[in-house]
Amino acid sequence: MLLGSIEAGGTKFVCAVGNENYQIKDQTTFPTTAPEETLQKTVDYFKQFEVDAIGIASFGPIEVRKTAPNYGFITDTPKEVWSNTDFVGFLTKTIKVPVFFTTDVNGSAFGEYVMSQLSNEDVDSLVYYTIGTGVGGGAIINGKLVGSLGHPEMGHVKVKRHPDDLDFAGVCPFHKDCLEGLVSGPTFEARLNKSGKDVPLTDPVWDIMSYYVAQAVLQVTLILRPDKIVFGGGVTSEKFLEKVRRDFATLLNGYVHVPPLEEYITMPEISNNGSATVGDFALAKRLLRE
Amino acid sequence: MLLGSIEAGGTKFVCAVGNENYQIKDQTTFPTTAPEETLQKTVDYFKQFEVDAIGIASFGPIEVRKTAPNYGFITDTPKEVWSNTDFVGFLTKTIKVPVFFTTDVNGSAFGEYVMSQLSNEDVDSLVYYTIGTGVGGGAIINGKLVGSLGHPEMGHVKVKRHPDDLDFAGVCPFHKDCLEGLVSGPTFEARLNKSGKDVPLTDPVWDIMSYYVAQAVLQVTLILRPDKIVFGGGVTSEKFLEKVRRDFATLLNGYVHVPPLEEYITMPEISNNGSATVGDFALAKRLLRE
Ligand SMILES: Nc1ncnc2c1ncn2[C@@H]1O[C@H](COP(=O)(O)OP(=O)(O)O)[C@@H](O)[C@H]1O
Ligand SMILES: Nc1ncnc2c1ncn2[C@@H]1O[C@H](COP(=O)(O)OP(=O)(O)O)[C@@H](O)[C@H]1O
Ligand SMILES: [Zn+2]
Ligand SMILES: [Zn+2]
Repeated sequence: MLLGSIEAGGTKFVCAVGNENYQIKDQTTFPTTAPEETLQKTVDYFKQFEVDAIGIASFGPIEVRKTAPNYGFITDTPKEVWSNTDFVGFLTKTIKVPVFFTTDVNGSAFGEYVMSQLSNEDVDSLVYYTIGTGVGGGAIINGKLVGSLGHPEMGHVKVKRHPDDLDFAGVCPFHKDCLEGLVSGPTFEARLNKSGKDVPLTDPVWDIMSYYVAQAVLQVTLILRPDKIVFGGGVTSEKFLEKVRRDFATLLNGYVHVPPLEEYITMPEISNNGSATVGDFALAKRLLRE
Repeated sequence: MLLGSIEAGGTKFVCAVGNENYQIKDQTTFPTTAPEETLQKTVDYFKQFEVDAIGIASFGPIEVRKTAPNYGFITDTPKEVWSNTDFVGFLTKTIKVPVFFTTDVNGSAFGEYVMSQLSNEDVDSLVYYTIGTGVGGGAIINGKLVGSLGHPEMGHVKVKRHPDDLDFAGVCPFHKDCLEGLVSGPTFEARLNKSGKDVPLTDPVWDIMSYYVAQAVLQVTLILRPDKIVFGGGVTSEKFLEKVRRDFATLLNGYVHVPPLEEYITMPEISNNGSATVGDFALAKRLLRE
């Protein structure tokens, strides 16, 4: 069995083929340019292989409901040239195999879920957040992706403002001070006029950010009671998650049972941003079994 | 097939037997007194019938994880005499049939889900809130109950305070101004010194409350993207939900697609607080099929 993965990001596309054990056999990366050009490169890549199915983890928003007339499209994305792009249609015109189409964070969530299963962790439900250029979240509940009316938009929840941060307007183009507007990568430039990677963990801004992220963790804990919450994306680091755990413990105040926080709030098990690739392979494989 | 339902509330128990079409064949109600006495009455009731399985929708918190040593218990409830009561154990000592044990709101959520299915609505995912003496929420995602680490505690999420309500401390015994602390029935006594049923819908307190409930609806909308959100409990009314819809529309501001709000945010389809009974029957029936 040969499985395909397309991780379609706003900056770059990562295409890969792998076997049923999720081992990568070949991989390529190219920049995200105009839709036609980028998708043609994707098609040309997969033409070289005889894949049986493909999983796509795409930037969004996207239409994931099979019944929608524009199923398989990237819809009204801020990355304007990509608005209303028939991603799945373009691909399957040439590569005539079953395709599973979902968001980048859903793909990553599924990859982390599958890996937890393989390492015999008792994980049925898992939430994956990315904190990068934007903030997004995906969830697996009882082994299935969440989102009946469309995919979740967990990055855009409202949070309570930190008392030392009331002057900051927030950077979300839609909501200003939603979670994404307060903790995504570009907030470093907006708050401090420098890039996040140049802001040491001792800077108090990280404590402001961990307070917001901890509120998101509290929300999903009370609403979903997942087994595990995984954080990826350029802004995330183990040291930052230590702060998130500390603030979450304060907010939760023992109200409901959760696992030890180092196991509950974690970095991805799959290294090198590989979660979505594994998730795509697994989602493609599942298509063939159904 | 004869199915049993136990709706175990803090004030009263409703026991019923029904057939596989969820038609009630017999029903009884008695007050919730001491655990031994109340559970003995429950057992005596079911001794009269030959039920094949029983669904229990209980007040909580309860232990729903099959692997937990105290599975089937009501755990550390504020209703103190009931703390650490082995509900399922007491019942199955005498009534030796399969039992499905879940929360009151999960039972109601499942009842509403099943009814939507029967009326051919396209509902895979549904959230049910009760706003009564307390506030609780349960969810069905892809046809299954949510809650891997335990049942949700959706009533205790944090919300942003309404500018006209900043002086109100909130009544939640655990968190003061969580959702329950701001919108449960007893908040009427705490804010206005009278009972909720004596406060006309024109009183501005209802607009304060709808603002909070709308925030909860926004949170689950962004996190779960359910097909439908149902509200029950003594505080809820169609007129109140009109206010909730209005405030939710303002908060959502068109950000994600949702159905027409009169279909999305609704009163229960099953009348007379019967959602949990139908849910219990359906959960019991599902046990027999597995
Ligand atoms: N060490 C770091 N600390 C804080 N922010 C960082 C760090 N490294 C990268 N970032 C920020 O993360 C964002 C990029 O996130 P990333 O997940 O890599 O990409 P994307 O979200 O575009 O897929 C940028 O805003 C960048 O400034
Ligand atoms: N018409 C009403 N308007 C507002 N609150 C009400 C109304 N009727 C009952 N309540 C309040 O609802 C609460 C009881 O809720 P209910 O769902 O009936 O019971 P429980 O939550 O105990 O199962 C009480 O606090 C009561 O004061
Ligand atoms: Zn936003
Ligand atoms: Zn509370």
